[in-house]
Amino acid sequence: MRGAKTMAFTFQINDEVQFNHDERLLNKAKQYKPVIHQDIVFPKSIVELVPDSQKLEGWGVQDTQDIEGLPNIKLKRNQKITLDFGSHQVGKFSIDINSVGSPMDAPLFIKLKFAEMPAELKHKSEDYHGWLSKSWIQEEYIHLDVLPTHLELSRRYSFRYVEITVIDTSPKWQAVLSNPQVESETSASNEQLSVPSIKDPEMKSIYQVGLKTLQDCMQDIFEDGPKRDRRLWIGDLRLQALANYATFKDVGLVKRCLYLFGAMTAKDGRIPANVFTQPQDIPDDTFLFDYSLFFISILDDFQRFKQDQELLSDLYPFAKKQMDVALEKVQLNGELILDDSYPVFIDWSNDFDKNTAGQAVLIYTLRQFIHLAKMMNDNVDGYSQKLHELISYSQFNLFDAEKGLFVSGPQHEVNIASQVWMVLARVLDDRQNKQVMIHTINELFPITGIATPYMYHHITQALFEAGMNDEAIKLMKDYWGQMISLGADTYWEAFEPAKPEYSPYGSPILNSYCHAWSCTPVYLIQKYLIGEE
Amino acid sequence: MRGAKTMAFTFQINDEVQFNHDERLLNKAKQYKPVIHQDIVFPKSIVELVPDSQKLEGWGVQDTQDIEGLPNIKLKRNQKITLDFGSHQVGKFSIDINSVGSPMDAPLFIKLKFAEMPAELKHKSEDYHGWLSKSWIQEEYIHLDVLPTHLELSRRYSFRYVEITVIDTSPKWQAVLSNPQVESETSASNEQLSVPSIKDPEMKSIYQVGLKTLQDCMQDIFEDGPKRDRRLWIGDLRLQALANYATFKDVGLVKRCLYLFGAMTAKDGRIPANVFTQPQDIPDDTFLFDYSLFFISILDDFQRFKQDQELLSDLYPFAKKQMDVALEKVQLNGELILDDSYPVFIDWSNDFDKNTAGQAVLIYTLRQFIHLAKMMNDNVDGYSQKLHELISYSQFNLFDAEKGLFVSGPQHEVNIASQVWMVLARVLDDRQNKQVMIHTINELFPITGIATPYMYHHITQALFEAGMNDEAIKLMKDYWGQMISLGADTYWEAFEPAKPEYSPYGSPILNSYCHAWSCTPVYLIQKYLIGEE
Repeated sequence: MRGAKTMAFTFQINDEVQFNHDERLLNKAKQYKPVIHQDIVFPKSIVELVPDSQKLEGWGVQDTQDIEGLPNIKLKRNQKITLDFGSHQVGKFSIDINSVGSPMDAPLFIKLKFAEMPAELKHKSEDYHGWLSKSWIQEEYIHLDVLPTHLELSRRYSFRYVEITVIDTSPKWQAVLSNPQVESETSASNEQLSVPSIKDPEMKSIYQVGLKTLQDCMQDIFEDGPKRDRRLWIGDLRLQALANYATFKDVGLVKRCLYLFGAMTAKDGRIPANVFTQPQDIPDDTFLFDYSLFFISILDDFQRFKQDQELLSDLYPFAKKQMDVALEKVQLNGELILDDSYPVFIDWSNDFDKNTAGQAVLIYTLRQFIHLAKMMNDNVDGYSQKLHELISYSQFNLFDAEKGLFVSGPQHEVNIASQVWMVLARVLDDRQNKQVMIHTINELFPITGIATPYMYHHITQALFEAGMNDEAIKLMKDYWGQMISLGADTYWEAFEPAKPEYSPYGSPILNSYCHAWSCTPVYLIQKYLIGEE
Repeated sequence: MRGAKTMAFTFQINDEVQFNHDERLLNKAKQYKPVIHQDIVFPKSIVELVPDSQKLEGWGVQDTQDIEGLPNIKLKRNQKITLDFGSHQVGKFSIDINSVGSPMDAPLFIKLKFAEMPAELKHKSEDYHGWLSKSWIQEEYIHLDVLPTHLELSRRYSFRYVEITVIDTSPKWQAVLSNPQVESETSASNEQLSVPSIKDPEMKSIYQVGLKTLQDCMQDIFEDGPKRDRRLWIGDLRLQALANYATFKDVGLVKRCLYLFGAMTAKDGRIPANVFTQPQDIPDDTFLFDYSLFFISILDDFQRFKQDQELLSDLYPFAKKQMDVALEKVQLNGELILDDSYPVFIDWSNDFDKNTAGQAVLIYTLRQFIHLAKMMNDNVDGYSQKLHELISYSQFNLFDAEKGLFVSGPQHEVNIASQVWMVLARVLDDRQNKQVMIHTINELFPITGIATPYMYHHITQALFEAGMNDEAIKLMKDYWGQMISLGADTYWEAFEPAKPEYSPYGSPILNSYCHAWSCTPVYLIQKYLIGEE
């Protein structure tokens, strides 16, 4: 595996890996291609960026003019306007542009910048030099030789704000804009959606923003983020699927995604961490130990939501293969030994020891695998034995009874991820799990060094699983609630409450402010606070 | 008239002016819309910019790689290649782009820069802050979400070199280019072209570059420059039409352009200095005394090349109106008094007195008008009388017999433009004209302060008209020949031999290096050195 040390494990180069392409399964994935629902949305106001200490990075917007006045604004060199669509949009932007004054004696040269958050408008693409591709920055430079014109941008953008800068007209004439609109896109349908009645207004907002996040990530596949990477990642898919069962209940889209992964495994059987669907279905050459195992989890979660024998029969062999590959890394004593060729993700940060959390994920998914194997009437004896060994090792070698917490790695590191995943894996009994979470709160809170809603989701769920609803709700308010306070219309890919301005890429213009793995409040609220029907 | 002092008279804002739109004549203009001939041209080599003291601004190119090797070059962030098409091209560019390496996990972001001359590649658009619109800079920024793709740019460019910079891929993959090509466009047809046999290799080159210049400017109209302004200007048209009669002999395109001007006069009768044909036929609100009069000249030159009664009948009234408006500015003593509301162009520079040259242009065009009037059997008595008065005033008040040169303005300034235009207007007899041009050479050469081939054309023609062929040839070699030495594939909008790096806009990326008013060597050589058949 190649990949720079500064990059996350999600960034790998393994271009020597050979892949299978199971055409039968790819055809099934194609059968479940969703209908994209389009909706025309108009901007609500013309705004300008203003300092606002309450908002992300200290930048908010304020209305400057009625949107109805747009066609009266004459723009010349270096002048700009910013349109606010009022909420997060995913879709295609179009606008009418004309010239006023003397005849148009030169082309119009304009720049359009699409921003999910006001803070993005403050950052210039020229100042970004991080490793993540600059190509993700949502900016276009366009020459228009003849006006009037109806400008329809062919690309899809993820944004709330559109900043349009006239780089130049000529001294003889000015540009005038009218009829800006976005044709928003999502494959989420409200037909089966039933939004629960939530009394607490804060929790109600937290739910609604999560629902919008999920909706905007549901496209031709479950995307991780409509701004970036616009791609099907296993880690996001698992959480999106759970959130989807709690809301839109679109089983077809989950099936499509499961078939895509099952159809494109590496020759050694491993499921890649993500796949592409353009220009055709292509597996990425990135492999993560836990992500591969989560294929099992997603298949099992599906069956628990809606039993589907065809899906199960088609994909069970791939689920089994993931478990068999993983179990090869387990010692006779029940200890999982991870190595760099197949790293475990757990969370973005590589500053904590992941051995114990990895062991827990294996236990978590092995339980789900055994459930699937039983549905398939497969022999589970060997797997049950392994489960027992993994649990025993965890109880006796990884749990520090004195501390009441799990330790990880050669330094016996105590970190949050270990506790949370061991609780989710139900390695201890309910009483002990609650004790672990109480110790976690007492000794490891306030949380530091965790910047992803992905990890925060698992902490919150572990609190719920331990029966600590009040603490879980408090954490949701402190985390997802704080994103809303900072101006979120959808939840972010990365957020560290102690460092709200943190970007894993060095600039907010690269951040995805609508990210699938952050949408889980809809799932958590439905499952633990509303209750399943 | 509004317009900044720093700008040329060609830049005016008179947006209160009302115009006529003669639909009958506009329809005739449409009837003569030419066929655009397309030709597929492939680049000859991959080059890099290198210092070359012999070339414009000290920059040339050298081959770095065989063009056949292009698809083997893997481009990542900040890498670029430059394609050389071997000669000047006007047309649409296309190229195939693919990715190699790991799957394409981010869009491709590329910049394409089209350059007529190597020096342009050295200048950055960010550094340009002149008044002329930045929108003319031939640069595009393009995001490609999915590769492979066939990229066809929709705009037409004027260039020899294409610099393609990969702004970013991602660390996982590289971009690969193949099949670059241009679909070149011109309305010039070789069917009636007969290139004269020219023995002097220098003059042969001078002819050939002029022919290419004319060809690349012949599009849907006679454009001033295919890079910029891509527009029909009277000043260029007059010279292009003459060059065209000497070469391609496309009478339809000249008719089209004449009808466009005739159809769109101001309510006061004046013909604007230029017109637009996109998105529909639109007159510009710029008026130049001499340009309006040159409508007469173009119509008369046409009739002398090929008599056309319909064209003459249709357009004679407009020609007459130009003369009548101009003659209103002539005093009883035969002195033309110019004012700022209707400035005379003569040349870009406003650093010399234009009164005498303006008077000469009026005489020059009045002679042609009288010829037209006679063809129309119109009464010319009044015009002949005016011609006599204008000439008399010039002979007795503007010609300084002692100096043997014409003077201009209240300071009795002696400048080249006055001599040249008075010679072309044949105010003196042949012997005196020759004396004027001998004095001009002796006292006003080497030429300084003149930066346009437009003015150099008139100087050269005056030398030929005065029978001084050797001096005319020497000037052509010193001027047009020097452009070729500096690397011209087509002649430039602006060139001052003493300051080859001069740009009227402050940067060569705004200069037009293929400009109609510079193509006249083909006309001068044919008329004065080959002789008309």
